[in-house]
Amino acid sequence: MTDEKLLAALTPQARNEPDSGIVKAAMYGFTVPGIIPLWSGEGNQPTPEAFARPAAEALLNGETFYTWQRGIPELRDALARYHTRNFGRSFEPENFFVTSGGMHAIQTIVQMITSDGDEIVLPTPAWPNYAGALRISGAKPVEVPMNFANGKWTLDLDRLFDAVTERTRAIALNSPSNPVGWTATRDELVAVRDFCRRRGIWIFADEVYTRFYYGDNGETRAPSFLDICEDEEQLLLANTFSKNWAMTGWRVGWLQAPKALGPAIERIVQVSSSGTPAFLQRGCVAALDHGDAFIERQVLMARHRRDLTVLMLKELPGLQFEVPQGAFYLFFGIDGMTDSAATVRRLIDEAKVGFAPGSTFGAGGEGHLRMCYLKDLGPLEEALGRFVDWMRRHGPV
Amino acid sequence: MTDEKLLAALTPQARNEPDSGIVKAAMYGFTVPGIIPLWSGEGNQPTPEAFARPAAEALLNGETFYTWQRGIPELRDALARYHTRNFGRSFEPENFFVTSGGMHAIQTIVQMITSDGDEIVLPTPAWPNYAGALRISGAKPVEVPMNFANGKWTLDLDRLFDAVTERTRAIALNSPSNPVGWTATRDELVAVRDFCRRRGIWIFADEVYTRFYYGDNGETRAPSFLDICEDEEQLLLANTFSKNWAMTGWRVGWLQAPKALGPAIERIVQVSSSGTPAFLQRGCVAALDHGDAFIERQVLMARHRRDLTVLMLKELPGLQFEVPQGAFYLFFGIDGMTDSAATVRRLIDEAKVGFAPGSTFGAGGEGHLRMCYLKDLGPLEEALGRFVDWMRRHGPV
Repeated sequence: MTDEKLLAALTPQARNEPDSGIVKAAMYGFTVPGIIPLWSGEGNQPTPEAFARPAAEALLNGETFYTWQRGIPELRDALARYHTRNFGRSFEPENFFVTSGGMHAIQTIVQMITSDGDEIVLPTPAWPNYAGALRISGAKPVEVPMNFANGKWTLDLDRLFDAVTERTRAIALNSPSNPVGWTATRDELVAVRDFCRRRGIWIFADEVYTRFYYGDNGETRAPSFLDICEDEEQLLLANTFSKNWAMTGWRVGWLQAPKALGPAIERIVQVSSSGTPAFLQRGCVAALDHGDAFIERQVLMARHRRDLTVLMLKELPGLQFEVPQGAFYLFFGIDGMTDSAATVRRLIDEAKVGFAPGSTFGAGGEGHLRMCYLKDLGPLEEALGRFVDWMRRHGPV
Repeated sequence: MTDEKLLAALTPQARNEPDSGIVKAAMYGFTVPGIIPLWSGEGNQPTPEAFARPAAEALLNGETFYTWQRGIPELRDALARYHTRNFGRSFEPENFFVTSGGMHAIQTIVQMITSDGDEIVLPTPAWPNYAGALRISGAKPVEVPMNFANGKWTLDLDRLFDAVTERTRAIALNSPSNPVGWTATRDELVAVRDFCRRRGIWIFADEVYTRFYYGDNGETRAPSFLDICEDEEQLLLANTFSKNWAMTGWRVGWLQAPKALGPAIERIVQVSSSGTPAFLQRGCVAALDHGDAFIERQVLMARHRRDLTVLMLKELPGLQFEVPQGAFYLFFGIDGMTDSAATVRRLIDEAKVGFAPGSTFGAGGEGHLRMCYLKDLGPLEEALGRFVDWMRRHGPV
């Protein structure tokens, strides 16, 4: 059978969904000798042994059977403890549901609250996987571009709320934001909460980078919906072990939701992942209970790498960016660049440095590149040096 | 906010999807002291150390970063080798896609070939997760009940084909079947293949239990679509490491599909699991390359347990079943039983033995119970003894 006929037998959304520009960049550059990859959202550090060993031991000790669809009780307890410690109020294990990564948490949210044709409103530039998960499931991402002016990203809340229609089931907010680092103030969160309450729609929050927040007053996290919402209201939070604890490759995350949704979440988990390996969850318990110092060091390193990156790039002509308030990306505009994917390929080939193209992050993303700066010092300095040289030689492209 | 209002804000399919009767039985009976659980589809053996150790080592050695969305090349190579060895022809790595469990492979198939309102035809009794995955994604399972007469399950192919409409995207066939053990003959597979080719619809095959086949002629696997189909036709196979290699808790499986679908599969994986942990895949390579003797022993044990179960139950009045040709379940009817879920609860409470209710397996399932017999000898004999005693005391219920 020809490839054309086989592809024609897929659904239009499966056939036509664009590739993630991040994955495309990685596939293009992966095998280039000497490449320094900054395209993915992960640091250079492997998972600390203190988190890995309990998982390895549970695996070798035969904890290899089907497990709780909501997560092992010990991990749900540990999630409640972690949040109680970090959010200054008490949390209950019954509001936490373990997922097979943050992406799986997002997919579970999409499957719970959207039917075919339903809409979710989200500010862009945004991580492309939100829109992808929505389109694949038949729902519609409604993008509201943020404003970038005078070196600053802002979100026009009126514009965000105006995008809400009768078909809107949620506003999705990622703060601190991947890729731009924008972080909602408490007042902005309150405005979103109040609007969603009035309209009876869900808040779909991704606070994955909340610990990677570079406030000026020693804050250890960004403002959060958890500061201002009830546990039992229309709030769904996707989160992950990937970033805080250097566990991207583990594929374990969690979903925070009203208790009443437990059976619905359990059923969706059953027909998607059928649960997350129990032995991996043992490592996650260790990460939550013994990982605070590791997170502090990671965030301190991220802040240093951010400052270094800004220092090395701020004098470069034709570059526009805001010093990010959170997350661990620099999202920078290049004057005159109209095809970020082509620039990414040229940078891979000619400078051996790997960025992600802004175009993949939705409306308002083209004209920019994203780099992850949570990297070892040597490779980061080398990559930035290569980029600066390339820009000086080629000028804005 | 009240639970009622929160649930009303979910989609109808998320709100109304029934719980899996298997999960419900497990949740009901899990904490009952002394219970012998036979409700799940897994053996008593933990994963052999030979498969677990390479995974544990890769985890401890820091193979903890994002990985290939299609699976690590070494595992795709090993899958091709395993199939080449067991199916008497050559297979290519490019037709294998690693998934986070067999369920994730099934979900990926559903997302690739069904839009809202599309139909998939499947014989029942069937594993409830097919119908669940379809309904949650907005598609429609069309059940075609098999016939159980004279102690034998048969599938009326004309009836199966008659259920195909303009909205049908695939025929889903699980052979050997969970729960009834029915195994399609080569002729039946050819008939399904030819019908699907004529109609231009997909074959959606679940051959997870193919090695658990109790043929009379020393066969080491059941007849397979892989014997009679091209690699590049409308055939999608879901499979898993769970059963053959005692790895239910790992959540690793694979999808076998035409090469042309690679990019579409990669995109769906990206927005569902974002890949399967690379370190776990190292253990799967070991299982494929060094697991043949383990599978042989497992299948020999399953055959013995099947025969023992049949021996202990065959004289019990009011019980109806076929000696299963494959998989590792006994699916038996009890004369006069009209509420299998209620009987399951009574058996948990009164006999301390845990079955799954037939009603959860779709049309034709009520009136039956399912038990997994791939268990250690002692607990299996004890459980069967308890059940026989209970039946003798209570008679058919």
